[in-house]
Amino acid sequence: MSTLPRRLGAEALGTALLLAIVIGSGIMAERLSGGNIAVALLANTAATVGGLYVLIEVFGPVSGAHFNPAVSAAMAWRGDLAAAWLLPYVLAQLVGAMAGAWLAHAMFDLPVLQWSTKVRTGHGQWLAEAVATAGLLLVILRAGTGKAPSLVAAYIGAAYWFTASTSFANPAAAFGRMWSDTFAGIAPGSVPGFVVAQCAGAVLGIGLDRLLGHPTPAPLSGNP
Amino acid sequence: MSTLPRRLGAEALGTALLLAIVIGSGIMAERLSGGNIAVALLANTAATVGGLYVLIEVFGPVSGAHFNPAVSAAMAWRGDLAAAWLLPYVLAQLVGAMAGAWLAHAMFDLPVLQWSTKVRTGHGQWLAEAVATAGLLLVILRAGTGKAPSLVAAYIGAAYWFTASTSFANPAAAFGRMWSDTFAGIAPGSVPGFVVAQCAGAVLGIGLDRLLGHPTPAPLSGNP
Amino acid sequence: MSTLPRRLGAEALGTALLLAIVIGSGIMAERLSGGNIAVALLANTAATVGGLYVLIEVFGPVSGAHFNPAVSAAMAWRGDLAAAWLLPYVLAQLVGAMAGAWLAHAMFDLPVLQWSTKVRTGHGQWLAEAVATAGLLLVILRAGTGKAPSLVAAYIGAAYWFTASTSFANPAAAFGRMWSDTFAGIAPGSVPGFVVAQCAGAVLGIGLDRLLGHPTPAPLSGNP
Amino acid sequence: MSTLPRRLGAEALGTALLLAIVIGSGIMAERLSGGNIAVALLANTAATVGGLYVLIEVFGPVSGAHFNPAVSAAMAWRGDLAAAWLLPYVLAQLVGAMAGAWLAHAMFDLPVLQWSTKVRTGHGQWLAEAVATAGLLLVILRAGTGKAPSLVAAYIGAAYWFTASTSFANPAAAFGRMWSDTFAGIAPGSVPGFVVAQCAGAVLGIGLDRLLGHPTPAPLSGNP
Repeated sequence: MSTLPRRLGAEALGTALLLAIVIGSGIMAERLSGGNIAVALLANTAATVGGLYVLIEVFGPVSGAHFNPAVSAAMAWRGDLAAAWLLPYVLAQLVGAMAGAWLAHAMFDLPVLQWSTKVRTGHGQWLAEAVATAGLLLVILRAGTGKAPSLVAAYIGAAYWFTASTSFANPAAAFGRMWSDTFAGIAPGSVPGFVVAQCAGAVLGIGLDRLLGHPTPAPLSGNP
Repeated sequence: MSTLPRRLGAEALGTALLLAIVIGSGIMAERLSGGNIAVALLANTAATVGGLYVLIEVFGPVSGAHFNPAVSAAMAWRGDLAAAWLLPYVLAQLVGAMAGAWLAHAMFDLPVLQWSTKVRTGHGQWLAEAVATAGLLLVILRAGTGKAPSLVAAYIGAAYWFTASTSFANPAAAFGRMWSDTFAGIAPGSVPGFVVAQCAGAVLGIGLDRLLGHPTPAPLSGNP
Repeated sequence: MSTLPRRLGAEALGTALLLAIVIGSGIMAERLSGGNIAVALLANTAATVGGLYVLIEVFGPVSGAHFNPAVSAAMAWRGDLAAAWLLPYVLAQLVGAMAGAWLAHAMFDLPVLQWSTKVRTGHGQWLAEAVATAGLLLVILRAGTGKAPSLVAAYIGAAYWFTASTSFANPAAAFGRMWSDTFAGIAPGSVPGFVVAQCAGAVLGIGLDRLLGHPTPAPLSGNP
Repeated sequence: MSTLPRRLGAEALGTALLLAIVIGSGIMAERLSGGNIAVALLANTAATVGGLYVLIEVFGPVSGAHFNPAVSAAMAWRGDLAAAWLLPYVLAQLVGAMAGAWLAHAMFDLPVLQWSTKVRTGHGQWLAEAVATAGLLLVILRAGTGKAPSLVAAYIGAAYWFTASTSFANPAAAFGRMWSDTFAGIAPGSVPGFVVAQCAGAVLGIGLDRLLGHPTPAPLSGNP
């Protein structure tokens, strides 16, 4: 286990790379797809799934690889993160998310500083964010030993498509994408609605996890 | 292992999420693909594979993660599910499937209550459902320890493409998709034919499993 | 380990399902892709990778899951398959391959009996088949314990794209695809050239395997 | 562990196959995609991910499966490769890369000897190569036991999309692609800029690895 500075460095760097992956692959996909948005989102999904899997494997042993304030809050609530470390974790994630957006812009020769103009709002999208975040928490809280990287990556890949909001499920991601007027962006005015929905979803996910209990793992069969 | 209420909750919630994934990603894919159905089905496939893998990992330790009356029946037949629990399992799956369709509609701002008008019928499709379900049962009954989640997900991903029916292979899925007039839907009048074919396929799969026997696992080589 | 009849049943059934997957997903992909062949081959690839992974996992413990005369011959040469069982294995694979093509046609409401008219010939394609088969043998002969299913599936997925022939790499697959005038088919007159190239490639793969030796497995680092 | 000749053979053959996969799948993808570059890059990505995973698994036990002078240099720096073996490793990789390009051309009936005319230059692309290579080194230096093949493959798959340069991240790959006037090529005049950026990125990656430290691996939670 690592010291707090190393943990915060890992959270900041990991979240920066996550946002660079999400935003950068969105830029690349939009440029190459010639207006075929389904193909662009497929590429964006593939890059996110692969990148998320790698980032959680690489940074997990250092900081837990949360990259997400909702996850850090759940870990603090469960006692797996010192309460005093929650705020530093969240700040590192937010700074990293913003820096990741800027890194993507620099790589693609775009103005580094920009704001998204893509409005994402409405009851459907808010419900989608709540569902997406509840599902993410359920997956993280119930993942078997060593399985979190592949489970979280696969879950987010599915959620890019089955939720109407393309599943941000992460307040730091919403914050970071706000700084990018590209495929993956979200207008600043739409961020609060997303974050509120994500927080509600996180609480729902934690509640569902408790309701289901934590039985001794059993094979696929449902023998009594 | 879990109590019956927790098991039923897991089956209902898991089946609901499975149907929300199948139907929701179908809606998203159809909206974004601009009429390119192959791209839409690719996206629908990717979301289903990722989601199914996660759902079986997450709910398996609670209820066995059947999400499918044909699987529950096979487990009861093999003695891995108490016979008295079969009917509650199936009811939980059906209720969950319907709720999952409704959840997808709510996320995508569609009328929650609707009926599919997509007719799926004919000898080819029925044969395809029988083959798809036989294969699914064969995979589940022969999966090595801990391998069911990735095997079932990969199998269904392949079966979306190699069967003429896009492989429902699940009476609860057929029931749930009936409530959705979208990409993944099936007209109510087409459901009975699919369910009959699935039941025949399940029996075939169980029979093939018995014929092949259950040898001690050996490496890839076929040494005598 | 299994008796010979069970092994032959597994080889025939597994090869039939493999060909049904390859040919069936090709038909589905061609129908849905509206002439975009790259998208069709992507779908064909995804279905083949998923299906091959599942089939090797499921049938491996029974028969070794060769589904390929070149693999069976290499196993017999290495002493991992009784020499007297080679011919029965190959016959089971050929019968299965043909039956799999017919099953695909029946599911898609096509005439069951048909011949491919797709000519596949030329030095480039023959070289491609030799390279593809050499690579496949190298992978199978060097796969670590339990890794053959995912390695073979991933290899074939890559080889669908990097070889000019879309990588049959399997005399039984060439034979089975001959019976299908669809996306994955091969004209009967092109089969002998492919099979000769595959046999040459298999010998090359076995030779390369010997040249590389079989060191004690070491971690990724190349320490001396 | 293997003798030096076997190691050099593995590096040369593995790098040749890697380049044949990257360039060959690029040719196939460009031919089939009818100008849809996003679909072509998706196929190129899928083939590279699958192929890289297999190659590292197969050649890792012999030579470490570097296929990349930057990786070999990092291993020599860390003491995992004898310093005297670094130059032979790099030469084997360069010869293999060139031969792999030629093999791809021969399979696709193209002139074997050719030069790329695709200019890849500019601050954005150089930054992208530095980021891509830093990330690759970070992944390799921190990969858990046995995880390098899937982590490296997934990372490169993501980096094809999130970096503006489609992530060569490998001086030998840049050298090999120089010999191919196809989808994956790079004009000789653009190679030096890429290689300088890759070397800078490799140093950055090694530095970041040291800063993060090497804690005892811990579960996903970030408990103090």
